[in-house]
Amino acid sequence: MAGTSEESINTRTAGHREPSRPSTGQQVFLAELAAGLRAGQVADDEETLTVYSVDQGPLLERHLPLAVVWAESVEDVQHIVRSCAAHQVPIVARGAGTGVSGGAHATQGCIVLGLERMNRILDLNPDDETAVVEPGVINADLNTAAAEHGLMYAPDPASYKMSTIGGNVATNAGGLRCAKYGVTRDSVLALDVVMADGSLMHTGHQTFKGVAGYDLTALLVGSEGTLGIVVGVTVRLKYLPREIHTIAAFYQDFRSAAAGVLAVGKARVQPAIMELLDNGTLVQLDELNGGDLQKRGKSLLLIQTDGFGAAAEADVVRQVLADRGATVTTEASEEAEMLVELRRNSRGVEVDDEFRVGEDIAVPRSRLVDFVAELEAMAARFQVRLKVVAHAGDGNLHPTFWMDRVDPATDADALQRLNAALDESIRVGLEMGGTITGEHGVGQYKLRWLGLEQPEPVRELQRRIKELFDPQGILNPGKAI
Amino acid sequence: MAGTSEESINTRTAGHREPSRPSTGQQVFLAELAAGLRAGQVADDEETLTVYSVDQGPLLERHLPLAVVWAESVEDVQHIVRSCAAHQVPIVARGAGTGVSGGAHATQGCIVLGLERMNRILDLNPDDETAVVEPGVINADLNTAAAEHGLMYAPDPASYKMSTIGGNVATNAGGLRCAKYGVTRDSVLALDVVMADGSLMHTGHQTFKGVAGYDLTALLVGSEGTLGIVVGVTVRLKYLPREIHTIAAFYQDFRSAAAGVLAVGKARVQPAIMELLDNGTLVQLDELNGGDLQKRGKSLLLIQTDGFGAAAEADVVRQVLADRGATVTTEASEEAEMLVELRRNSRGVEVDDEFRVGEDIAVPRSRLVDFVAELEAMAARFQVRLKVVAHAGDGNLHPTFWMDRVDPATDADALQRLNAALDESIRVGLEMGGTITGEHGVGQYKLRWLGLEQPEPVRELQRRIKELFDPQGILNPGKAI
Repeated sequence: MAGTSEESINTRTAGHREPSRPSTGQQVFLAELAAGLRAGQVADDEETLTVYSVDQGPLLERHLPLAVVWAESVEDVQHIVRSCAAHQVPIVARGAGTGVSGGAHATQGCIVLGLERMNRILDLNPDDETAVVEPGVINADLNTAAAEHGLMYAPDPASYKMSTIGGNVATNAGGLRCAKYGVTRDSVLALDVVMADGSLMHTGHQTFKGVAGYDLTALLVGSEGTLGIVVGVTVRLKYLPREIHTIAAFYQDFRSAAAGVLAVGKARVQPAIMELLDNGTLVQLDELNGGDLQKRGKSLLLIQTDGFGAAAEADVVRQVLADRGATVTTEASEEAEMLVELRRNSRGVEVDDEFRVGEDIAVPRSRLVDFVAELEAMAARFQVRLKVVAHAGDGNLHPTFWMDRVDPATDADALQRLNAALDESIRVGLEMGGTITGEHGVGQYKLRWLGLEQPEPVRELQRRIKELFDPQGILNPGKAI
Repeated sequence: MAGTSEESINTRTAGHREPSRPSTGQQVFLAELAAGLRAGQVADDEETLTVYSVDQGPLLERHLPLAVVWAESVEDVQHIVRSCAAHQVPIVARGAGTGVSGGAHATQGCIVLGLERMNRILDLNPDDETAVVEPGVINADLNTAAAEHGLMYAPDPASYKMSTIGGNVATNAGGLRCAKYGVTRDSVLALDVVMADGSLMHTGHQTFKGVAGYDLTALLVGSEGTLGIVVGVTVRLKYLPREIHTIAAFYQDFRSAAAGVLAVGKARVQPAIMELLDNGTLVQLDELNGGDLQKRGKSLLLIQTDGFGAAAEADVVRQVLADRGATVTTEASEEAEMLVELRRNSRGVEVDDEFRVGEDIAVPRSRLVDFVAELEAMAARFQVRLKVVAHAGDGNLHPTFWMDRVDPATDADALQRLNAALDESIRVGLEMGGTITGEHGVGQYKLRWLGLEQPEPVRELQRRIKELFDPQGILNPGKAI
């Protein structure tokens, strides 16, 4: 499962279930499962089970899987699914485990199906501008292969160096350059899917356009492994831009930076990347990298234009932002590019020594400034600290409420205040016409808010679609819907 | 229902059912229906029934609807659907009736639900870059309104001056500029849908990105009124390009022109429009417009670049095409722009005095040249004439096999030869990894080929989704899947 890094929570307090010995029925199942696979494809040692029991999402209660099973072929996946179907064993499919909503967390009595070994690029056709890949191919590896032909796979979650295409598909992953190039769904043409009964189905088309029948492909993208196991992905590639210009604009406050995003929009320039970083994020980046960003402003808007019009677009952007009070880099954009890399690779740099809760709210672009103002007010009200990064071109914000590590004994309500701020941010985001998840997926962690966004009939329809695809409910139960 | 114009068939030979008097049950239904509507919202005179019994698709057998009913509000649609549900009366929803696959053809005992009066743009937010429209809004009207803010609604089927957004959504309509800007699905963020039981459902999100739950919006887009009646559409707008460059490249044969499409791709330039016209099309355009296109070449590749990089991209395109033997316009692009307008507005210019069968095949781009060669061979083999226009950037071809009007008495096998060529083109297109419909939809006409593209389990899954949404099967039965 893939996503970006901004959501996190201190999980050390989450419950931990000790593994129990498999029951006789489970032993029969595990024997059947192993009988169809090679040695080394199944593990049930506690260390492995523990590592594979969670993705990078917040954990409410830890379950250890019965086993971790690595598929190496479509046939393996079919065998595994059939074995699980015969014994009603839940299957949690997993790519690199970089998801941040708990979509790949193990559930009671499940197996974790690791797809990272199915990592071949089966075809890359530069004339068709398409590629066919196994689900375990790393996003960055596909991009490296495509770049040789002047092509790119556009969706670029911050986890792109680690996350898999299969995981990106499962979560309909977004990323930095989606404002211009679209999200994962917009790049997926066709899927090979192992259904809940072990049968193999092909959906979609190898062509850029195709409208035969219902769009099962789009239904499967973002379904977080609850409707089928994706074992093959046909993607459309885009042209690797030959020219890229990067602009760093510093502001004295975050709201002005957010207003800059709308000003660029009003100039009708479509940047590839528009990232917004607040003061808290600049401070953190300085701490980690020894820079002086916080001296240059209280907020940073990073914009990248690309393609044949990149220089002209960058000129317009610089002018528009400078006119509205930003301090804009006029030098060569090397430093700005370095900042984009810092932003891109921020995964894993979260400071461990703190309490924090993070989100993935998207709001209509016009509400960006208002929403940021509300977030700042909430942080003050709940006496917690705030840092925000945003894929601002999409109105997609990743606010994190946090505080320095506190002793639960002396500040018992710390986590409570963090969670209250989090809930409030969700409520206000929805009130502004937003969504609880712009790109990370509902997974397990966000189910509690889904009812605030989607009324019961919409949720019931999804449950019935799930039943249609997976009558026994063995595919990643308790996730996504 | 919207689409483009290239598919057509001589329909005068299709069967015509005389209207029969409504049964007592039908009379009760019609009375109930009318009781909830204003005068002028229901018609059952034969002329109206006849006009509304078909869209612009080929007709196999004509059925007259029981009535034509025009909804003027969401509540009207709910009343109409509830009345139909209570009496198991099929509902064929219809926008402007410009579809070319028979998706809006009346079926036995149905009503036709006209949505053209629901034509208000409910909201157009230039900061959010979104619009909310009723289904009957004409595509061009939305574009006119958006243009005032420097925005555009990108999907542009050739019927854009007539077709409705609701119809575009129903067929997931394509158009000329989708290679760069995507198809209808890529511009639709959210839908308001009246379900088969008359309830109102909202799917999707007002934000550019959103991954909460399954993508019901994408499932509904392209479902041709078989899963629900779309009564509201939230679309994302794109930036109206300030600069456009248009290039006309003439070739001595069609295959070289098709190869030019790949050459532009290899130069990694993404034009907004890439239209390919063969000799037959040039001859027809000359006949209709008094031009001399056919003297300038046997095939024409029309390319439009747009945006800040338009001039630089056009330079590369001209160079690439000229290097490979095309005669490229070097003058100002006015004439080329006029040619694009001719191509855009080719709807309705089909010569009535001929037999013809047309298609909407898409193939992977690398097979474009091969497929064109195969089409030419088929035309020769079946002794029929061929003309082809193609949205070549997408690999989406609209070949038409035709012959001058013949007397069925003396050339009995004329239609048979045309249909044999048509079937063969479908078979070969599929063999090349193509689809039977790139953008027009399956409707009623293409059901006979759907089984060649999609195996039975994929079709069965779609039937079960249909049953889930519409247990009584009253929503546009016998279409799309």
